[in-house]
Amino acid sequence: MKLHLKNGRYLDVRTMTVKSGSVCTEGGIFTYVGNEPPEDNYDRVIDLNGNLVIPGFCNAHTHSPMVFLRSFAEDLPLDKWLTEAVFPHEAKLTPEDNYTLTKLAVAEYVSNGITSCFDMYYYPEAMAKAFSETGFRCVFCGALNNFSESIEKLEEYYLKFNNYHPLISYKLGFHAEYTTSLELMKGVAGLAHKYNAPVWCHNSETKSETEECIARYGMTPTEIMDSIGMFEYGGGGYHCIYLCEEDFNIFARHNMTVVTNPCSNLKLSSGIADLTEACRRGINLAIGTDGAASNNSLDMFKEMYLCTALQKLKYSDAAAMPAESVLKAAFTGGARALEINSGAIETGKLADFAVIDMRRPCMQPENNIVKNLVFGGSRDIVRMTAVGGKILYENGGFFIGEDTEKLYADCAAICKRIFTK
Amino acid sequence: MKLHLKNGRYLDVRTMTVKSGSVCTEGGIFTYVGNEPPEDNYDRVIDLNGNLVIPGFCNAHTHSPMVFLRSFAEDLPLDKWLTEAVFPHEAKLTPEDNYTLTKLAVAEYVSNGITSCFDMYYYPEAMAKAFSETGFRCVFCGALNNFSESIEKLEEYYLKFNNYHPLISYKLGFHAEYTTSLELMKGVAGLAHKYNAPVWCHNSETKSETEECIARYGMTPTEIMDSIGMFEYGGGGYHCIYLCEEDFNIFARHNMTVVTNPCSNLKLSSGIADLTEACRRGINLAIGTDGAASNNSLDMFKEMYLCTALQKLKYSDAAAMPAESVLKAAFTGGARALEINSGAIETGKLADFAVIDMRRPCMQPENNIVKNLVFGGSRDIVRMTAVGGKILYENGGFFIGEDTEKLYADCAAICKRIFTK
Repeated sequence: MKLHLKNGRYLDVRTMTVKSGSVCTEGGIFTYVGNEPPEDNYDRVIDLNGNLVIPGFCNAHTHSPMVFLRSFAEDLPLDKWLTEAVFPHEAKLTPEDNYTLTKLAVAEYVSNGITSCFDMYYYPEAMAKAFSETGFRCVFCGALNNFSESIEKLEEYYLKFNNYHPLISYKLGFHAEYTTSLELMKGVAGLAHKYNAPVWCHNSETKSETEECIARYGMTPTEIMDSIGMFEYGGGGYHCIYLCEEDFNIFARHNMTVVTNPCSNLKLSSGIADLTEACRRGINLAIGTDGAASNNSLDMFKEMYLCTALQKLKYSDAAAMPAESVLKAAFTGGARALEINSGAIETGKLADFAVIDMRRPCMQPENNIVKNLVFGGSRDIVRMTAVGGKILYENGGFFIGEDTEKLYADCAAICKRIFTK
Repeated sequence: MKLHLKNGRYLDVRTMTVKSGSVCTEGGIFTYVGNEPPEDNYDRVIDLNGNLVIPGFCNAHTHSPMVFLRSFAEDLPLDKWLTEAVFPHEAKLTPEDNYTLTKLAVAEYVSNGITSCFDMYYYPEAMAKAFSETGFRCVFCGALNNFSESIEKLEEYYLKFNNYHPLISYKLGFHAEYTTSLELMKGVAGLAHKYNAPVWCHNSETKSETEECIARYGMTPTEIMDSIGMFEYGGGGYHCIYLCEEDFNIFARHNMTVVTNPCSNLKLSSGIADLTEACRRGINLAIGTDGAASNNSLDMFKEMYLCTALQKLKYSDAAAMPAESVLKAAFTGGARALEINSGAIETGKLADFAVIDMRRPCMQPENNIVKNLVFGGSRDIVRMTAVGGKILYENGGFFIGEDTEKLYADCAAICKRIFTK
């Protein structure tokens, strides 16, 4: 598919400025960005009429199939929510369910300008099928813990899904310190050394998780993992709310990534991650939605706004965490974490992009488009989303190889079966 | 205009449940809600195909023309933002500017399901013209302070705009204690007694504002105002972040309304209002966006999410401020504050409503639609917005008597003139 997006503007992520020009794609990558597009036999020429091409958002932490729990049990204390609403119903999910539910999540992602995700959940075979069939880019993270999967399974998945489909890859990972024995964690660290691979997990999401780890090992989650060589080849943590000074040192030393999930952290009253400190230390920052059960939407605009707004609250400083830093995290920070060649509108990069409708009232007047994407954007400004140059969403319509009416009915049937006692 | 919205669902705000049925309007009010719509000669019959009719949102605190400052100067400390970005540029606004800018705000309101606003700003004549011409409902609040307007002007406006147009009304009000002398405040209290009228103002938005008032009078802003009989006939405050025990007593005693503006409060690092305490005491709660300069969008979905999420953070309790309380504030709490007969889909109420697109992925599956409106909603789910039975927004198109391309160009010209030194 050779696309020519003409008569538009694009976000230059290096300078965080908006430039005028054409954007061309072929073979899944950007082949030209600028003001003198080559004459070519394009499959489709799209007149952007001044609209704005931005890199697709990288959703750097999610559990896609959890859309089935969206608004199933809200306004509950965390323990009750987990033990009564989440765990017993997750146990009823089949691989077929996850296949269908993943497609619903993809529809929501592309309606939001999201073009890739970093997903930790069960039944990756079924999910990989859904992602590749819909045309969406997914990097899986291992979900090993004391109750499911094994070191052998993790290695099997690692080898399988890194050779499965161009849209799919796989990172070593486990659920979290508090759900994974030291023996298992040592097994993961062993694989990291065997494959020179980064490792990912939930880390320091709640105060009690961190305190209990210190009681158990005399070390924070980051420290105990680092002590067994877990991060020799980098990686990162999801949430990272309760990182201490030494934890930040470890993240910096191993070029690790802090993935922040502010929406989920508010809803579950977990706290506010110290993104300002992470940025001050030059630690790579990425942004994720977490699963829909704890959010409840898969909406990077909501996350981006909270990234800056909650730092302003935390530091009582309206200048904290400027918009440019947030956008960098949502684009290049995420791409660096997932090790995919996206996150910028540049020749040679993966053609993962979204087109922003500059004619929505919330985008007017155009005093500062970059600031406004973060402070004033919302899902309604996304006019088009493409992954690898393939348009998956355009003008409210979905092109993910699945009729959405059927998809919604299938998801409703799954919920009915699971929630019926 | 006689409308029949058939084959849909509607939100019953009394029970906070979703019901199936038809909604009919005539003469600006709902004439029928239920399952046996009368045969009639409707001007238009709309098949909702299962979509959801909700009351229009009441934006209970805003400064509409401030859209001109949207994303003009972000990530600045509050004092610099006010003195360098806001004040000098506001001073250049003309009535004609405010007329045009108000129309841009209306476009954004209706794209968001907002059907009425409570607006405090300069040049109400120009703004009232814009609101009535576009078909949007506005209740003005007096903007008196030491630097502009007068008691006589306030009374003149009060009488004029309460007899101006069915869509327009006017409440007594002044900017805030810290910008208004005791003498002027006494003058406002005098008008309140003369007209048996409620009074509104910014109240306890920042810690320093409250501390300085205590240093000045030995009383909080609420206490000093109450001591001069300001709230004999009710009214309320915008922001209300730093209310003390006695302030809450005063609010409860006079049946006053707390209007919360969580998005603005985060962006300007003002703090988190104690909505939980207000609800516990049965104080009426309403929600507003504040002006676009400090938000940056006029988006009630963003505000609603923050209303619940920030209480969960403040109280470290994921059960704090349930979704139903938030919706009540956004609908009936706002209508009660503005003294307009809207906020519910019921026969005899003003036909101010929005239609929610239930086929957006973020609204699926339908585990709990009421919860999901607050936790998972965003502007893209608004399919239609009508004020007094007149459709102002439908399927992305605006019907506000103004071409949006021209409106955007006019607003750009205003910004260019104002921001050019």
